[in-house]
Amino acid sequence: MNKVSGIISLLTDFGEEDHYVGTMKGVILGINPSLRLVDITHNIPPHDIYQASYLLSCYYRYFPPGTVHLVVVDPGVGGKRKPIIAVTGSYYFVLPDNGLLSFISAREKVRAFEIRKEKYLITPRGATFQGRDVFAPAAAHLASGVSPRLFGPKISDFVEFSLPKVEVMGDVLIGEVIHIDRFGNVVTNIDFSFFKRYVKKFIAIEVNKRKITEIKKSYEEGKEGGPFAIFGSSDYLELSVYQRRADELLSVRRGDKILVYFNKNQ
Amino acid sequence: MNKVSGIISLLTDFGEEDHYVGTMKGVILGINPSLRLVDITHNIPPHDIYQASYLLSCYYRYFPPGTVHLVVVDPGVGGKRKPIIAVTGSYYFVLPDNGLLSFISAREKVRAFEIRKEKYLITPRGATFQGRDVFAPAAAHLASGVSPRLFGPKISDFVEFSLPKVEVMGDVLIGEVIHIDRFGNVVTNIDFSFFKRYVKKFIAIEVNKRKITEIKKSYEEGKEGGPFAIFGSSDYLELSVYQRRADELLSVRRGDKILVYFNKNQ
Amino acid sequence: MNKVSGIISLLTDFGEEDHYVGTMKGVILGINPSLRLVDITHNIPPHDIYQASYLLSCYYRYFPPGTVHLVVVDPGVGGKRKPIIAVTGSYYFVLPDNGLLSFISAREKVRAFEIRKEKYLITPRGATFQGRDVFAPAAAHLASGVSPRLFGPKISDFVEFSLPKVEVMGDVLIGEVIHIDRFGNVVTNIDFSFFKRYVKKFIAIEVNKRKITEIKKSYEEGKEGGPFAIFGSSDYLELSVYQRRADELLSVRRGDKILVYFNKNQ
Repeated sequence: MNKVSGIISLLTDFGEEDHYVGTMKGVILGINPSLRLVDITHNIPPHDIYQASYLLSCYYRYFPPGTVHLVVVDPGVGGKRKPIIAVTGSYYFVLPDNGLLSFISAREKVRAFEIRKEKYLITPRGATFQGRDVFAPAAAHLASGVSPRLFGPKISDFVEFSLPKVEVMGDVLIGEVIHIDRFGNVVTNIDFSFFKRYVKKFIAIEVNKRKITEIKKSYEEGKEGGPFAIFGSSDYLELSVYQRRADELLSVRRGDKILVYFNKNQ
Repeated sequence: MNKVSGIISLLTDFGEEDHYVGTMKGVILGINPSLRLVDITHNIPPHDIYQASYLLSCYYRYFPPGTVHLVVVDPGVGGKRKPIIAVTGSYYFVLPDNGLLSFISAREKVRAFEIRKEKYLITPRGATFQGRDVFAPAAAHLASGVSPRLFGPKISDFVEFSLPKVEVMGDVLIGEVIHIDRFGNVVTNIDFSFFKRYVKKFIAIEVNKRKITEIKKSYEEGKEGGPFAIFGSSDYLELSVYQRRADELLSVRRGDKILVYFNKNQ
Repeated sequence: MNKVSGIISLLTDFGEEDHYVGTMKGVILGINPSLRLVDITHNIPPHDIYQASYLLSCYYRYFPPGTVHLVVVDPGVGGKRKPIIAVTGSYYFVLPDNGLLSFISAREKVRAFEIRKEKYLITPRGATFQGRDVFAPAAAHLASGVSPRLFGPKISDFVEFSLPKVEVMGDVLIGEVIHIDRFGNVVTNIDFSFFKRYVKKFIAIEVNKRKITEIKKSYEEGKEGGPFAIFGSSDYLELSVYQRRADELLSVRRGDKILVYFNKNQ
């Protein structure tokens, strides 16, 4: 038996107008009624693997060791992509092999196993709802202590999409917007330690031809004045405006470039 | 004492901008703090009994036997419709008697009891929030092991709306759209076994003057080309388009007719 | 050790497109995996302290005694407002000191303690996500039995915004709309006992130059005819229309005045 917390977190793009989430929860509790379910959100935009991957990488490591993180955002349901179990030092992940692990595998070592063993699955006629037939039952058995390697063969080549890397060109860092949060905060891929390595003296940030010259320590500090930069809760550089939406004010979207001008020689 | 799982699932149209769901959860845990709550969704469109009834019929049987399914979609709150407990072979249901059981009673035998015993209810002055005063406390006591028959008299005539039946006219099945899911998949009332009984050789489906000639095994199979048909997770015939909304492409709504042309003589 | 139920309810404005709620849940269960989480809603409109305060005052007292109510609606995150623990006769509250207690402290005695003790907090570099770093860990320790006074000094002056008071001018009560619910019901600040004290003979309600002359006992009673008044589930006077949105029909918003004409001498 593996060390498990008995907790399963759920992240899906199933929304709230269908029975899909309820059915998955029923399947899990039907296999082991003592498991505990924790909703993250079911409102990932349909098929948005990138956003799910980013969010997953933010919350997974706060849970108790041995937690199973179940993620179903699966545009290719029933197709050739494999259902897999991934394992890091402390956590388990049950998800389709479509890139959902990318933000995590950029950070820590991940082993992966295909989910294949029929004994741990529901076998319906069709292949339209693998959340119910594959992912939920696998998560339930895994969270009950079944070893990942009993589900199927180890695989070495799970899918990772190439995350946008921060580039350094002379005295400029070139980063990218990876997330807009609910409050309109603009999250970039420039993290604190990378920033510190290069930016001895910060000059300015440019995005959409707008310049931002201040880096604050808290949102409250940004009370006076316009947009400002801040290192957010996940240590990424963010753009904010006090109690307004920075994304709208700056007309920024996910994928937009962001430039950080600096002076190398402190 | 009855066999119970100690689990209560919650399905309502209370949305997420009010205290109603929180209050019901408080009432349940106030009666028995060891009960376990599982949210299905609270975003049923206001007063849409039909959709709640359909969703309920999809998820209820995946839960552990002895689970209490609490459903509050109740346009006639405080009026003459009775609050009831329904019992099937393995599950309990607590809901207003307004048709919510229709999709389930079309499938299996249901017994029902009126909820009347004051000892199991909260008795406020008004009658505006029976979710709190009647349904939540009844669900809590039921899930704690109180027998359904202790809540009030058995009733034999609970409300069932007439579900759309599939008609057979010569070489055509005439069905109806019963649900549009979050991804735009169009769910009809034509189920697999009914289809197989009549359709020896499938010719085509017609909806809104559009013809669909292919029945696929998975969404992934529909990758190339336009709309296709598929038997979905609940064994109903569905219309889909690969990673697009079929309902929009076909301009289809709940209640629309769907024709299946076939050849009787294989 | 204090008397605790081991249950934490969660109310936030974090929405469902971010990792914030998931991270807070992870932090809580990471500190004590046996705690039980109950979602109220995470869809409070961003920064709407008033609505959160109202909703909190509606649901908190239905939970088992010793429940911890965690509320994070925090426009001034990282600023000077203090994170606090509030205590009433039976419940605990963990929240920023920004007025969230107003509707509760208008009703019952509240003691408050500042959350300051680093041992019960996460100490990151920045101050952008105190839901994770301060409120979630404090709630987890509190719900595990740590006494409120161990978190920091008692404070006597927590923030309360002045709630709209009902005025009496001759033969008229002047109240205010404090909430519009999901169904369009218009909730006012005129409560039943206040109403009874003054209104011996009810004449009419006026709102936006529309007159309402009937007070019903249930929504169902309002089946025939237009808008009517009713004392709702929290004992406040509400305006409703049978199965339609009263707020739209009457063009009413939160903050609008409502007049109740009456005859003093029954």
